[in-house]
Amino acid sequence: MSSTTAAPEQQQSPRVRADELAQIVQGELVGNPDVILSTLAPIESGAPGALTFIRAQGFAKQWAESKCEAALVTRGVEVPDHDPEKRALIYVDDADVAVVRILEMIDPGVAHPDTGTHPTAQVDPDAEVDPTARIGPGCVVMKGARIGASTVLMANAFIGGDAAIGSGCVIHPGVVIGDRCTLGNNCLVFANTVIGADGFGYLPGDEHRGAIKVPQIGSVVIGDDVEIGACSTIDRAKFGITKIGNRTKIDNQVHIGHNCIIGDDVLLCGRTTLGGSAMIGDRTMVGGAVVLNDQARVGKDVKIAGGSIVLDSIDDNQTVLGVPAMPSRVALANAAAQRNLAQFCRRVEKSLKKLDPGFKPPSA
Amino acid sequence: MSSTTAAPEQQQSPRVRADELAQIVQGELVGNPDVILSTLAPIESGAPGALTFIRAQGFAKQWAESKCEAALVTRGVEVPDHDPEKRALIYVDDADVAVVRILEMIDPGVAHPDTGTHPTAQVDPDAEVDPTARIGPGCVVMKGARIGASTVLMANAFIGGDAAIGSGCVIHPGVVIGDRCTLGNNCLVFANTVIGADGFGYLPGDEHRGAIKVPQIGSVVIGDDVEIGACSTIDRAKFGITKIGNRTKIDNQVHIGHNCIIGDDVLLCGRTTLGGSAMIGDRTMVGGAVVLNDQARVGKDVKIAGGSIVLDSIDDNQTVLGVPAMPSRVALANAAAQRNLAQFCRRVEKSLKKLDPGFKPPSA
Amino acid sequence: MSSTTAAPEQQQSPRVRADELAQIVQGELVGNPDVILSTLAPIESGAPGALTFIRAQGFAKQWAESKCEAALVTRGVEVPDHDPEKRALIYVDDADVAVVRILEMIDPGVAHPDTGTHPTAQVDPDAEVDPTARIGPGCVVMKGARIGASTVLMANAFIGGDAAIGSGCVIHPGVVIGDRCTLGNNCLVFANTVIGADGFGYLPGDEHRGAIKVPQIGSVVIGDDVEIGACSTIDRAKFGITKIGNRTKIDNQVHIGHNCIIGDDVLLCGRTTLGGSAMIGDRTMVGGAVVLNDQARVGKDVKIAGGSIVLDSIDDNQTVLGVPAMPSRVALANAAAQRNLAQFCRRVEKSLKKLDPGFKPPSA
Repeated sequence: MSSTTAAPEQQQSPRVRADELAQIVQGELVGNPDVILSTLAPIESGAPGALTFIRAQGFAKQWAESKCEAALVTRGVEVPDHDPEKRALIYVDDADVAVVRILEMIDPGVAHPDTGTHPTAQVDPDAEVDPTARIGPGCVVMKGARIGASTVLMANAFIGGDAAIGSGCVIHPGVVIGDRCTLGNNCLVFANTVIGADGFGYLPGDEHRGAIKVPQIGSVVIGDDVEIGACSTIDRAKFGITKIGNRTKIDNQVHIGHNCIIGDDVLLCGRTTLGGSAMIGDRTMVGGAVVLNDQARVGKDVKIAGGSIVLDSIDDNQTVLGVPAMPSRVALANAAAQRNLAQFCRRVEKSLKKLDPGFKPPSA
Repeated sequence: MSSTTAAPEQQQSPRVRADELAQIVQGELVGNPDVILSTLAPIESGAPGALTFIRAQGFAKQWAESKCEAALVTRGVEVPDHDPEKRALIYVDDADVAVVRILEMIDPGVAHPDTGTHPTAQVDPDAEVDPTARIGPGCVVMKGARIGASTVLMANAFIGGDAAIGSGCVIHPGVVIGDRCTLGNNCLVFANTVIGADGFGYLPGDEHRGAIKVPQIGSVVIGDDVEIGACSTIDRAKFGITKIGNRTKIDNQVHIGHNCIIGDDVLLCGRTTLGGSAMIGDRTMVGGAVVLNDQARVGKDVKIAGGSIVLDSIDDNQTVLGVPAMPSRVALANAAAQRNLAQFCRRVEKSLKKLDPGFKPPSA
Repeated sequence: MSSTTAAPEQQQSPRVRADELAQIVQGELVGNPDVILSTLAPIESGAPGALTFIRAQGFAKQWAESKCEAALVTRGVEVPDHDPEKRALIYVDDADVAVVRILEMIDPGVAHPDTGTHPTAQVDPDAEVDPTARIGPGCVVMKGARIGASTVLMANAFIGGDAAIGSGCVIHPGVVIGDRCTLGNNCLVFANTVIGADGFGYLPGDEHRGAIKVPQIGSVVIGDDVEIGACSTIDRAKFGITKIGNRTKIDNQVHIGHNCIIGDDVLLCGRTTLGGSAMIGDRTMVGGAVVLNDQARVGKDVKIAGGSIVLDSIDDNQTVLGVPAMPSRVALANAAAQRNLAQFCRRVEKSLKKLDPGFKPPSA
């Protein structure tokens, strides 16, 4: 009923010699070419057969004590106490990039359903499913929906009426994509994320009845190469669209309100919340647990630190943090003052009581 | 396998003349009755055929530059530079309300499963499902559960043992409603929300065993006309009930702990978290990402700004914000002082060093 | 199609006499042995037939006004105005523990699917499912997965390739457990939680392409007796494992990033977020809506108050709170100063303007 991209035995890291590895990553070997590597490990917790990486000078001093047998090292980093008889260093332009290449090589892939529509999936006769797509068990594809080539719906996913998913997408179990919402090509959506719930919009009620629901008749439009984590929610627009640009990456438990416009190449970390109609420009990076107010405007190439609250607008190229978010230089100075606030107040009060008989401490 | 409330061709906004629209919303037309409208747009991003709305004086000055061809205007707002030969203004008592009427009119509705129980749904023989209900594919209805007239379970929803859902409800895909929990009539629950998980209650363990689970044997009782967003969680009570009042609206990713008592007509915005046994009075509005401590008591007609943390209690009719939440006048003044805190401290230190040889800056 | 641990009529609390109850909890009865008890209630909202509990002296004075007919009282607490002719007090070593025993006794249990695999569940022929397990409707168990004895998958759950679940676990509807992730014995996972989504890891892109995905090929390893709430997410490691220790309890909507290492007996309250590679030591208690930065290190036996942000590291045995988290004594003093900050600044400015002609208030 299921096939796996890689057989289970391949899921253990392959065994590779240090000199072979140096060739694979086009690196320069300094040390023992015969070391056999079979696993990856952080430098501080290695084991025989483990490969680690030293991306910057700060990590190099741990090499002497590490139990790892080889390391990918960013060129220019000096590694003290290396014994080339026993262990291997492989110098590359960028150790992080080399690790990605190795991870891609040994990635076991995701266990997928078979090509075609599983007998327990429910595909409306008026939906269009590419014959190369995989519609897993329990999935539901409503009337008018379109599923592109090679796209995978893992299991128990729901694709609403007239929704469209491009080619090469992987939609994990339990994902719900509402009516008329669209995803581009090569998108990856993790489990139980919901795209296209109604925006949260009401007019105030009166004494006779409660809040009046504003119908949310818009949709969500998601670009190409977008990745969305698990249990995130992206609401449909009141009218028009909620938009997520190309190559934007969204972490778990992120909430994006109705009518938000998110640019290309944006990063939104875990649990960040965007109120309705917020805008974020291209290449902006937003830390975890950030809040953007309704209608907040954030420019391009902005960096927002985790835990910040953005009340109104942030210009292009700013680095901001805090509650409310401010340029980081000011915010860090205020935070430093805040840490000693009680002591500062006590000392100021003591001095001023001496100097000014009229001075009263607060709430006195 | 599925029917849609509206046929696809109706999902495009209908084309309507300005004078017809004025009649529909019982408004007064000032301008060209022949303008043909086919879409809604914000005033700053309109297009030919677009209708917009001007709810307050602040938006009126954008009309001259707008590409929209007609606008609903709240009576009393003066719109400068209107050319009645070319474009149309329609004056109404409340532009927001008129827009709701139009959205209701053109709302394509949600693609629903057919009436009856889908062959892949599992309904226990001892469950009671009204014959007018729609139980979609993959839904599971356990023993003793009751589903009211015209209620829709979209797909892959789970209704636990002895749970009850009133009439006219729409339960989106992946929603889980635990044993013995009840919803009133005309409720709307968006995808992957979980009602009736166990409350988080433990007694401290000792050296022999870990934390002792306190059984959570209560339930959740939800009133009529309640709306709950996607990926929200409402925990069952330890004993007794967790209660959500009538007409209360809950956004996405809201967490409501065990034994909370929420009044009628309450609004809870996205990602707000309520600790166990918190209480909120009628008509209170809670912004996004707010935290209420365990056992917090919030009165009626309170407004709590986004990002606030409520430690203990808030009286009726207060407007509060901040960490901890304080009356807004004090909180805003403190926030303003906080923004200049580092500069303030530097200047005070400089003066006091001159004035008082005994003064020491903090952490010195 | 489903069986329930307890028949519906048992779901109402049983009727029990006060003297019988005293025997059950091994307590000492002071008062009327004939009181008939049929429900549990908080002391302030009781009713005839209701049992309540008085865990500490602070609650004892409410007994005189309470409508409850009996109370479990922690030995040593003095209860004023008790009329032993009419009502019953039952003294026990710990009223909280006695209540747990009673709740366990009357717990109606969860409505489970039958033993075996439901006809609509999809179990790969190369998966190993213990014959005593219950695989509910719509569940999907992929190739190489293992399900232990007596474990229950409620409905529509997804168990990925080569994943393993121990014995005695209860997996609620809609839970998704990714490829190669493992759970120990006696774990409880509430609905729509996702274990094993990819960690959020990218290398910066360049002008030619967007962020480069770092393959997340590790897994998640969860110990025994772990409880995880609804809509929580635990990401798989980049390589190696994300680890949750034995007996750790995790609330709803908690997010745990890739490569986090959580000790034994840890408590994580609702909506707490852990960045990648964060570590938490044994027996640490973390309040609600807390944020741990990437790579934060929190020791053993730490207490972190709700709403705190942990930037870097917290030593063993600390009690911390605030943004950033600081020892509670300092944080509380700072918070107290913060509450009067605007007033303090005004008064200091007024004095310094008199004393020092060179003093300028901030932003002046």
